[in-house]
Amino acid sequence: MTKEFSPSPRTIMTPGPVEVDPRVLRAMSYPILGQFDPEFTSLMNETMVMLRELFQTSNQWAYPVDGTSRSGIEAVLTSLIEPGDRVLVPIYGRFGHLLYEIAERCGAEVIAMEQEWGAVFEPQQVIEAIRKEKPAIVAMVHGETSTGRIQPLEQIGKACRELDVLLVVDAVATIGGVPVETDNWCLDAVIGGTQKCLSVPAGMAPVTYNERVERKILSRKRVERGLRTGLVPEAYADETKLIRSNYLDLSQLQDYWSPARLNHHTEMTSMLYGLHEGLRLVLAEGLEARFARHRRHEQALTAGLTAMGLSLYGDCACKLPVVTCVDIPDGVDGEAVRRMLLDRFGIEIASSFGALKGKIWRIGTMGYSCSMKNVLHLLGALEAVLLRFGAAVHPGAALAAALDAYDESAAGEPAHAVK
Amino acid sequence: MTKEFSPSPRTIMTPGPVEVDPRVLRAMSYPILGQFDPEFTSLMNETMVMLRELFQTSNQWAYPVDGTSRSGIEAVLTSLIEPGDRVLVPIYGRFGHLLYEIAERCGAEVIAMEQEWGAVFEPQQVIEAIRKEKPAIVAMVHGETSTGRIQPLEQIGKACRELDVLLVVDAVATIGGVPVETDNWCLDAVIGGTQKCLSVPAGMAPVTYNERVERKILSRKRVERGLRTGLVPEAYADETKLIRSNYLDLSQLQDYWSPARLNHHTEMTSMLYGLHEGLRLVLAEGLEARFARHRRHEQALTAGLTAMGLSLYGDCACKLPVVTCVDIPDGVDGEAVRRMLLDRFGIEIASSFGALKGKIWRIGTMGYSCSMKNVLHLLGALEAVLLRFGAAVHPGAALAAALDAYDESAAGEPAHAVK
Repeated sequence: MTKEFSPSPRTIMTPGPVEVDPRVLRAMSYPILGQFDPEFTSLMNETMVMLRELFQTSNQWAYPVDGTSRSGIEAVLTSLIEPGDRVLVPIYGRFGHLLYEIAERCGAEVIAMEQEWGAVFEPQQVIEAIRKEKPAIVAMVHGETSTGRIQPLEQIGKACRELDVLLVVDAVATIGGVPVETDNWCLDAVIGGTQKCLSVPAGMAPVTYNERVERKILSRKRVERGLRTGLVPEAYADETKLIRSNYLDLSQLQDYWSPARLNHHTEMTSMLYGLHEGLRLVLAEGLEARFARHRRHEQALTAGLTAMGLSLYGDCACKLPVVTCVDIPDGVDGEAVRRMLLDRFGIEIASSFGALKGKIWRIGTMGYSCSMKNVLHLLGALEAVLLRFGAAVHPGAALAAALDAYDESAAGEPAHAVK
Repeated sequence: MTKEFSPSPRTIMTPGPVEVDPRVLRAMSYPILGQFDPEFTSLMNETMVMLRELFQTSNQWAYPVDGTSRSGIEAVLTSLIEPGDRVLVPIYGRFGHLLYEIAERCGAEVIAMEQEWGAVFEPQQVIEAIRKEKPAIVAMVHGETSTGRIQPLEQIGKACRELDVLLVVDAVATIGGVPVETDNWCLDAVIGGTQKCLSVPAGMAPVTYNERVERKILSRKRVERGLRTGLVPEAYADETKLIRSNYLDLSQLQDYWSPARLNHHTEMTSMLYGLHEGLRLVLAEGLEARFARHRRHEQALTAGLTAMGLSLYGDCACKLPVVTCVDIPDGVDGEAVRRMLLDRFGIEIASSFGALKGKIWRIGTMGYSCSMKNVLHLLGALEAVLLRFGAAVHPGAALAAALDAYDESAAGEPAHAVK
């Protein structure tokens, strides 16, 4: 007989999943409502209103896809891409490769451009590629957790609008932690993540898209067999138009999220409870205050790490505020350090992918995990573990520097802001 | 500012989502673990062990797909179906049409056979069609909630094995409520649902598949860009082999659920906590005892409904034990009855789809909702509402008949079994 599960307490300082506010966890434990219960459909509508605010958009469509973050990315791409569509993917880390991978599986003719890991693109480079390649769609990552970089998007968005190209943005890592200005930056479709700066468990992928995207999706729409009434429209005969997924078909999902409530899947009751409460807490904190909190703890963390004698990875001009990548010191076994942090201190930090595996650690300061308590706990623990492994770090310097950083940031702010 | 959410208590007697055991809800409120935390990967492994027992299989692969039930169906079909593959879909209700729809979107040449709603197929009919049409895959529904019917599968499964055809079964409505004997019935792939007889919130789709299915899936496997090492294998050039989804690609998902733990999505922490606890409770009750409980409450419910003067819809020889379809009496507005049940009594029952819309109600007796308290509460309430709407029902008869049915079933069983 399997024993009852009881997880150990953890300090989670990875780029996701991160710790969840107890109020969100409590909401997830509330009893179930039916999916067409008026109380539940109200909850769906409230969630859409809050998502629009989060994405800083006036788009009609802002709702969660029922799956983890990449289900949202795939939903947008598979609903948009017709076989042979040219899709430009500027890649500067692992998750750019994922966009390529998904677009390719959707039947796109993918044009990749790659930037060395640790940096991002000059917007002008991307804009020139768009002018040259004339893609129908550009898909790119806003915050690349594999390398800890953030890509400026405003100029690229405005160029795409001018050139009538659709811009799809993976903002999984950034939404709720750093500004994502959907409308101001002319982003046509944006996918967010729950388990990172929103601090809601993994399981939903909030998306938003504008009328430009909707027009293309609706040109491909087919009502599901078993729900159709009347004759089958002639347009259904065009095979290239058929969206290759039923589950991730945004033309059906938006009917389900519209007042029509056309039955599709059974909405994830408990996950939506969690997302609703998570969004409520994000907006109660205020987006600007939340972004400032993420910067404040990043500053304390990086001050501590560098004072300890560690060096940060990558181009600091495009550092992603919510993920800090640290070079693993020569002669230190990065995985052994991670194991000891977890086993002795209950702290989790992340390794990386591909060529960076074994070269850097990745430390997240996201959402509910982004707190003074966690930053200080991690710095003290990391110092002790590195000393144990014989690394040349400066004892005592990290926490002193981080406390100084907190004192400085507190000087200009009300006391309760340093939480 | 959005107010904190607080759902009203509901008695949910639909074919899903249904009420959830408080112990499952509690598990969903536990703090998060990282996806590669050894405690979490142990939880994943325990879940696989319990799923094998639930599916009555010795298959290696039994794990949840991260999405609602239809994501599991689509994952199996999109991972199996190569463009042009012949897929036979015997349809006897709405969810058969869904299998057709998904198979078509995967590029299959779909051959449909339809049975009038309210009945199922004689196994021999299906077997003859298989011999004639020579499909690569047969996809069919085990328990059709739209009509409340159950399709016997054993003979069809054995014929498929003999003819070297793959049989894919949608057991979303039946798993955990009525027997689903994956190995004995020669089912090659089975998809279960969480939000019905397992009484776990919607959000995951447990699947199992055998080596026959795995062989075909592995012949199509591609390691994701950004995770590949070494040269790209020649086989990757064959476009027809490419699985059209990344998110629902079982060849990648099984790597993630294997000891290799090859990174794919971020597993849904809280949903998995819930599924793990839900499975634990199902197996603690015992599959046979659980099936008997579902039959017992079905008998009391149908005794009550018929004593009241209502008639049951469809062929009783193939009635699905966990869903009872009731003809809406002439002159009664079925939706007004449903609304009054919800508004006054806090009880939810379901309407139906397509031609049956407005003709029948569907009452679920599934999982945690399948209890004496709920059945008696519903019968009393339905009688009162129907009287209010002027229907010709026999006052007092329903509860008397249901209580008699419970007394009879209790005579042969220990007292605690009537729960």
